[in-house]
Amino acid sequence: MQKISDPTISRLSTYYRTLSRLIEQKIDTVSSEKIAHINNITSAQVRKDLSFFGAFGKRGLGYNTVALKKEIGSILGIDKKWNIGLVGAGNIGRALIDYTEFKKQGFFIKAIFDNDLNKVGKKAGDLEIHHIDDVCYIANKENLEIAVIAVPAHKAQQVVDDLVKCGVRAFLNFAPITIKVPEGIIVKNENMSIELEALSYHLSRDKKKG
Amino acid sequence: MQKISDPTISRLSTYYRTLSRLIEQKIDTVSSEKIAHINNITSAQVRKDLSFFGAFGKRGLGYNTVALKKEIGSILGIDKKWNIGLVGAGNIGRALIDYTEFKKQGFFIKAIFDNDLNKVGKKAGDLEIHHIDDVCYIANKENLEIAVIAVPAHKAQQVVDDLVKCGVRAFLNFAPITIKVPEGIIVKNENMSIELEALSYHLSRDKKKG
Repeated sequence: MQKISDPTISRLSTYYRTLSRLIEQKIDTVSSEKIAHINNITSAQVRKDLSFFGAFGKRGLGYNTVALKKEIGSILGIDKKWNIGLVGAGNIGRALIDYTEFKKQGFFIKAIFDNDLNKVGKKAGDLEIHHIDDVCYIANKENLEIAVIAVPAHKAQQVVDDLVKCGVRAFLNFAPITIKVPEGIIVKNENMSIELEALSYHLSRDKKKG
Repeated sequence: MQKISDPTISRLSTYYRTLSRLIEQKIDTVSSEKIAHINNITSAQVRKDLSFFGAFGKRGLGYNTVALKKEIGSILGIDKKWNIGLVGAGNIGRALIDYTEFKKQGFFIKAIFDNDLNKVGKKAGDLEIHHIDDVCYIANKENLEIAVIAVPAHKAQQVVDDLVKCGVRAFLNFAPITIKVPEGIIVKNENMSIELEALSYHLSRDKKKG
C-alpha cells in the first residue's frame, strides 16, 4: 500500500466521524458530494482521498456508509485496540484520562507516570500513578505502543528519549516544543491553539467586512 | 478579500509556527520548498496558499521570514489580543488555563464559569470561578469574544445557546458532540483523538510492512 500523506490521513479521520454520524442517523449510502459538503471541502478532494484505497463507491450510487467506515477504520488502524502510556499526571494528563473519545476510537490509557513523589502511588481515574523511573518495566509489561507526553516543555525531550529506549515508537506530544526522534519513530504534536486561530480568522474577517 | 477555506487556514497556522521557529534560528529568508519540506507537503500547495494574499516572495529569493510571519499573523487575526471565556472548570478547563501556547498566540482567558457551587467563588489559576448564571453579565463586562466549551457533552448545547444570546459569536468546543448554531456563529471542534489516529495509521502500516 502506498504511503498516505498526513493531511490525507487527517481528512480520513474526519470522514470516519462523518460516516459514524450518518450511520447513527440510519443513512445507508452517501455520495462524495455529501461527504464534501458536510466537511466544507471539494468533492474532487474526497474522491481523490478515497481513490487511494480502490473503488468502494459505485458511480451514481455513492458509498455504503458501513462498509466505507469499516474500510477507513482499518486503514487508520483504529479497528484494533491501542495501549497508551500517559506521562504527566497534571491537568492535561488528568483531562485525557476522562476523555471518552479516546476509548471510542480504540485508544486505551493503560498506565500513567509522573516524577512527583506526592503523586506516585496515588490514583488518577482508575489507574495508579507510577514513578517515571519504572517507565520501561511498565511499558513492556502493559505492552504500551503509544505514549502521550503531557509534561512541562523542558522535560519532554528527556521523557521521549527514555521511552524510545524502552521501545515505544509513537508519541503524541502536548508540550509546546519540537521533539527530536530517531528515524522510524513518529511524533505528532497536539496544538490546541490551531483551532482558536481559525476562529480569530473568521472573527477578524467579519469585522473587516462589517 | 476572498474567503479562505478551513484547511488553508489550518496550514497558515502551521506556516506561522514554522516561520516563528526559523526566526528564532535567525533565518531571514525561506523558500516555499523549505516551508513545504518542513511540513511534509508539496511546495505547489505552499505557493498556492500564500498566493491568496498577493506576492510576498521574490522569485529565486524566497520569502522574508519576519514579513511573511507578520502578514500571516494579520490574516489569522492573531496580531491582536482576543478575550476568551472558559466554560467548565473541570480537568480540561484547568489544563487550558495553564496552556501557555494560548497566550503566546494572543488568546487570553479572562473569565471562567461553572455550575458547581463547590467551585464557584474559588480560584482557578489567577481567576475567580463565576457561576454560569452570570455568564452574560461577565461576557459583556470582560468583552468576551470567544468561548471555550469544556463542559460534559449533554450540557454543551445549552451553554452555547445561552452564550449566543449574550452576543458571543465564536466557540471552541471540546465536548464530543456536534453543536448547532445560527447562521453567522462559528464553532470549531477540538478533537484530541485525530492525531492519535495518525499515529495508529503509521504503526499499523509499519506492522503490515514488517
